[in-house]
Amino acid sequence: MPVLVVGSIALDTVKTPFEEHADLLGGSASYCAVAASFFSAVNLVGVVGADFPAEHVAFFKSRGMDLAGLQVAEGRTFRWSGEYMLDMNVRETRSIALNVFEHFTPRLAAGYAESAFVLLGNIGPGLQNHVLDQMAGPRFVIADTMDLWIKVALDELMRLLGRVDMLILNDSEARLLTRETSLVKAGLLIQAMGPRFVAIKKGEHGCLLFGEGGDFFSCSAYPLEDVHDPTGAGDTFAGGLAGYLASTVSGEVTFGDLRKAVVHGSVLASFNVEMFSLERMRSLTQEDIAERYESFRLFSHFEVIP
Amino acid sequence: MPVLVVGSIALDTVKTPFEEHADLLGGSASYCAVAASFFSAVNLVGVVGADFPAEHVAFFKSRGMDLAGLQVAEGRTFRWSGEYMLDMNVRETRSIALNVFEHFTPRLAAGYAESAFVLLGNIGPGLQNHVLDQMAGPRFVIADTMDLWIKVALDELMRLLGRVDMLILNDSEARLLTRETSLVKAGLLIQAMGPRFVAIKKGEHGCLLFGEGGDFFSCSAYPLEDVHDPTGAGDTFAGGLAGYLASTVSGEVTFGDLRKAVVHGSVLASFNVEMFSLERMRSLTQEDIAERYESFRLFSHFEVIP
Repeated sequence: MPVLVVGSIALDTVKTPFEEHADLLGGSASYCAVAASFFSAVNLVGVVGADFPAEHVAFFKSRGMDLAGLQVAEGRTFRWSGEYMLDMNVRETRSIALNVFEHFTPRLAAGYAESAFVLLGNIGPGLQNHVLDQMAGPRFVIADTMDLWIKVALDELMRLLGRVDMLILNDSEARLLTRETSLVKAGLLIQAMGPRFVAIKKGEHGCLLFGEGGDFFSCSAYPLEDVHDPTGAGDTFAGGLAGYLASTVSGEVTFGDLRKAVVHGSVLASFNVEMFSLERMRSLTQEDIAERYESFRLFSHFEVIP
Repeated sequence: MPVLVVGSIALDTVKTPFEEHADLLGGSASYCAVAASFFSAVNLVGVVGADFPAEHVAFFKSRGMDLAGLQVAEGRTFRWSGEYMLDMNVRETRSIALNVFEHFTPRLAAGYAESAFVLLGNIGPGLQNHVLDQMAGPRFVIADTMDLWIKVALDELMRLLGRVDMLILNDSEARLLTRETSLVKAGLLIQAMGPRFVAIKKGEHGCLLFGEGGDFFSCSAYPLEDVHDPTGAGDTFAGGLAGYLASTVSGEVTFGDLRKAVVHGSVLASFNVEMFSLERMRSLTQEDIAERYESFRLFSHFEVIP
């Protein structure tokens, strides 16, 4: 079953303490969609400028995506530049140029409105709501968000929270949204704002998943010795999660489905940070994914399955 | 099989943003020994002053401990005072009075030298080494340590690391000891210093366990909504872990044993922080422990055992 993915498509310049690369493929929709494509068909909604390299479009196509929702606008593609400190958990945005993204209005191509699964990647909640306005009753809607929208578009975000099944955000964003130090309390408070399911990402400490009736799952992160570029880790997590759900769930989404979806999202994200941009996704295989899923089982379970 | 526990025995004054209590039972040996006593017999080695309340000795006895190694010295009991900030992960020591602890020399009572399991609770590594000097070839030795000893007694600590099977320390201490940001690299570097097994505690984010040949286990923390007093959480973790091993392992300690031991330590620690000092341990039952162990399984496993 296809998952509809909407978000930003960008050209990134990324600096770490060890390397710097310019004009890399980036943006929330790029990471979400490519990750999802490892499990399911993807309907992509986004905008690029006339300068967007054809090789990136070819890469999306090679992942089997439907690109009828990809608008090409006059002007330059959205650009973002950021720098990571020696502690790679700390990032500074160096510059942002919205370019064609400034006037982006998501438009659903023919048939997209019937997508059963929707992943609203990280863009303004106004645009996320606009996508939902066009949908014909999707089965499961996941939204990602960030600190910026909590600060500047809280009303639209709160309206969105009443319409989605699941919210994904990181620990500092959860604390910002709820003004609560305890992540457990924060998760429960966000559920009270609307979403039945909440995933709080904790970077190198993994992810907490809150479900209905006190359901709770704690997913560890893969023990990587080196992280080369954390950019897009959260988007890749969301994409892997959404793609896995779309590929395996034919009825109601259960908490058991979501546990495994969170692990698949974590597997994809753990691969993605091994190289800059989406480079690692180009060589990733289903065998790699299956093998790392099994390592997640081995290092998370203490009652071992025979 | 009894576990020999050595460490400090203190009277603590603890302030949180919500409460303050004076002259509470505390100290690394108190927490370690009481936690271990839920699983195995305990031989306690420590020192208290003449002012140490008889009710605390009675509590130790009620937990079935052998107290022949508990010295009562002239003078006052070791006192510690600390304050927690609104973020309970942040603690400031307000005062320390070593008192009788200043001239403490651990002495093993008759039969203690043959203990198969040894838990060297957090005291100076010189004293920890002195205990090992008196042992008759223990099967498994666990040591806990802290930032202070890494800073002021590194040589003694390094000598200790060559003699223990397992080191337990927290994330900031692991980074301090190895000057490495990545906890995965830090764990591997500490193994290279001697211990076959290393447990890095991450507070609310759980614990990482490193074993031989790349064995790795990540244990989540219990999702508590409220923490009333984090004092002794790490000691309780170590005590529960050691007591569980001593009670269940009759041959060589395997990584599978240690996974379950880490979970049992986490279960005990999660109870202990629910109340001040060791208060929660007074009412804790085996049924409570078994129930919470099962919740750990439910929120950590994604491939569910039938």
